[in-house]
Amino acid sequence: MTSAVFKILYRVSWVDTDAAQVMHFSNYLRLFERAEEEFYRSLGFSFTELKDSELWLPRVEAFCQYKKPARFNDLLEIELRIEELRQKSVKYGFRIINKKKEELLALGYMTMVAADKRREKAIPIPEQIMEKLRSFANNP
Amino acid sequence: MTSAVFKILYRVSWVDTDAAQVMHFSNYLRLFERAEEEFYRSLGFSFTELKDSELWLPRVEAFCQYKKPARFNDLLEIELRIEELRQKSVKYGFRIINKKKEELLALGYMTMVAADKRREKAIPIPEQIMEKLRSFANNP
Amino acid sequence: MTSAVFKILYRVSWVDTDAAQVMHFSNYLRLFERAEEEFYRSLGFSFTELKDSELWLPRVEAFCQYKKPARFNDLLEIELRIEELRQKSVKYGFRIINKKKEELLALGYMTMVAADKRREKAIPIPEQIMEKLRSFANNP
Amino acid sequence: MTSAVFKILYRVSWVDTDAAQVMHFSNYLRLFERAEEEFYRSLGFSFTELKDSELWLPRVEAFCQYKKPARFNDLLEIELRIEELRQKSVKYGFRIINKKKEELLALGYMTMVAADKRREKAIPIPEQIMEKLRSFANNP
Repeated sequence: MTSAVFKILYRVSWVDTDAAQVMHFSNYLRLFERAEEEFYRSLGFSFTELKDSELWLPRVEAFCQYKKPARFNDLLEIELRIEELRQKSVKYGFRIINKKKEELLALGYMTMVAADKRREKAIPIPEQIMEKLRSFANNP
Repeated sequence: MTSAVFKILYRVSWVDTDAAQVMHFSNYLRLFERAEEEFYRSLGFSFTELKDSELWLPRVEAFCQYKKPARFNDLLEIELRIEELRQKSVKYGFRIINKKKEELLALGYMTMVAADKRREKAIPIPEQIMEKLRSFANNP
Repeated sequence: MTSAVFKILYRVSWVDTDAAQVMHFSNYLRLFERAEEEFYRSLGFSFTELKDSELWLPRVEAFCQYKKPARFNDLLEIELRIEELRQKSVKYGFRIINKKKEELLALGYMTMVAADKRREKAIPIPEQIMEKLRSFANNP
Repeated sequence: MTSAVFKILYRVSWVDTDAAQVMHFSNYLRLFERAEEEFYRSLGFSFTELKDSELWLPRVEAFCQYKKPARFNDLLEIELRIEELRQKSVKYGFRIINKKKEELLALGYMTMVAADKRREKAIPIPEQIMEKLRSFANNP
């Protein structure tokens, strides 16, 4: 799949670090999600509507490989790509880059399914969203 | 008010620390809340029922004074007291102690109001809860 | 004191929320700190140098009053003012505003002292920093 | 590898949840780490000494698969196993279980390398630690 790339910037805050003076490893997943949030916003897709609807997008898998540490005050670029798009699920690939040094710090992925919130059951991704994801995924 | 004291223990985790190699200052408030959660459990009062009801207990004020740092792996004792009990609100006082060194690390308070979740309006604390809080507050 | 005002914007992320579907109350303090970090950056003052030096800026007090909840995706504006400037300490005042609704959500303060990291003892704020803080504090 | 199993209990706190009223997906990794911390403590191995030494145990990979959500107040059991033990690295496998319902909520792994903190270079796991890990890994 030759997906387009969506990018956001993030400045590492003091609270993101741990006693090894690097960003805590769990926070990379939080940045993946932050990129995903901005990605939906860029598509004109509002989570706010989501909340009130029965649609829920739980994660089913998350993975991160750590190459080099991020430190306090580092400016990071988070890249999001669509790696796989199925009827009921989407797999996003991520790369986190130290913007100043132009170094790859981490890469990973998250897989989401569309689900009915009440019944906690997988459902097809709604067509209005799917259409936008498909267009992004096929538009390198 | 000569309140009884409720206590919990908490071990500082790596993720609680920051690059100064001490527990991040915001996490003290999270420990206040953790003590509050266990306090309600000790009273036989279930938040789970709360969630489904219209009752909501938002914080209106939180304060913390920091005396000495907590570090990774420190065993902390969090003490909870009732400092003020009103018809629609309760103010809890907290102390955080390094258990091994028997040193006071921090003290503070949080004030909660009872609220109707839908109307976002203050309401009297339900009598079944109030009774237990009153008993605790007056039983040194 | 008629301090100047420093402002940053922050978008509430999913991870910032809790099961009441509002931003968790401890995260307001984290936003206070984030504003402080950007404030130092705006003054050309680098925390990176800080880390390697013996200077440490621990918090001694933090306070927050909650007016209205912040929700997922809300765009917040965090305002920072200098409320008190002493030889060894500085007290910042904060206001958090829902940018779209122009509503005050929370206000509070944090007090920091300058300290010698190794000896864990208060020291005068270094003159190069003090000068900039003084100029900001007196420049409404 | 037929590793022994190490277990800890953890009660889901309010702050661990998000607006979907389930534990945020990033917090599973934090629980993996919490189990690892207690595991080292059970082996009589102190991170405190670690901090002052040149030894550092950065994560190189983390993975989690989510089966069912954890909710506020749920009592979780986190199981740790050694899945792979090499000269310079160790891979821990984890399972998170809802203790009351005896349901598997999530499983995953983390791989750590031993590293020299200053040179940021992989080194052999010190023999005093390796010995204990080997004994645990081979003692089902």
